[in-house]
Amino acid sequence: MDKPEQKSEQKSEAAAQEAALFRAFAENFRWDDVSLLAYKEEGSAPFRSITRQVLFKDEALHCELRYFEVAPGGYSTLERHEHTHGVMILRGQADVLVGDAVREVGTFDLVRIPAMTWHQFRTRGSEPMGFLCMVNVERDKPQLPSEEQLAELKRNSVIAGFLNAG
Amino acid sequence: MDKPEQKSEQKSEAAAQEAALFRAFAENFRWDDVSLLAYKEEGSAPFRSITRQVLFKDEALHCELRYFEVAPGGYSTLERHEHTHGVMILRGQADVLVGDAVREVGTFDLVRIPAMTWHQFRTRGSEPMGFLCMVNVERDKPQLPSEEQLAELKRNSVIAGFLNAG
Repeated sequence: MDKPEQKSEQKSEAAAQEAALFRAFAENFRWDDVSLLAYKEEGSAPFRSITRQVLFKDEALHCELRYFEVAPGGYSTLERHEHTHGVMILRGQADVLVGDAVREVGTFDLVRIPAMTWHQFRTRGSEPMGFLCMVNVERDKPQLPSEEQLAELKRNSVIAGFLNAG
Repeated sequence: MDKPEQKSEQKSEAAAQEAALFRAFAENFRWDDVSLLAYKEEGSAPFRSITRQVLFKDEALHCELRYFEVAPGGYSTLERHEHTHGVMILRGQADVLVGDAVREVGTFDLVRIPAMTWHQFRTRGSEPMGFLCMVNVERDKPQLPSEEQLAELKRNSVIAGFLNAG
């Protein structure tokens, strides 16, 4: 027969394994056993009021699924990179810039961010805005616009209106 | 100056490109520009009342994001494979089998399907149940249980209760 200590260890291991298989949705768009992380290192790039949770990151999967949440008035970094994003809005509303297109999006709308395309998410209204983002595990670092690139972007009145909204 | 035909062509190309960047969520858990597909080839495996939509499938992304929807009383195939799944429930409720664990899940709950682990989704209640499933683009074919494997699974009373529920 197992000693009580061994049984308890086996039980807690089994519980941990099961917890990793099933992670329940909790209040305020948190998930059990999922940490609330900073969006990026503070000061590394311009952004406002945004958090990150990694929902799936697994050696066997070649992509990660992350959940980002932006508080009212917040925005993600204006950036571009070689890797691409597949995005689904989960809550709230946003104005989204992709290339030279600006769109209002809401719950369950899809956004595709192609390679080397300037993009940014900005909340609309008074509700938090949350979105899923699928991305390759192996990926390049985001690029920020230079002063010249930003000036060039702002020559497009639609983009200028979007960027000046905050 | 462009001829009217050229302008019209340019405009429709631009519209198609923009449509591919932004695809709006539509009624009944459909998305603009996303086809409703059969879950699998009819007769290839046991399943009931389930459809598939591919939300992101892109040469640059190493995973796909699919949305599966199961009508009340329906279920996915009981199967296993080397590749893994990251699943998020989007609507409704289900009983889910993963290995020897059965759990009731609902909207935004997460389920991880490890390699070579028997799994199945069954709806609960009278609402359709829909879920996102992230999967590697390159993956092996699902395996169905043999008669012997099914008998072995059913020796576990929890699994037997789950499989006999339909």
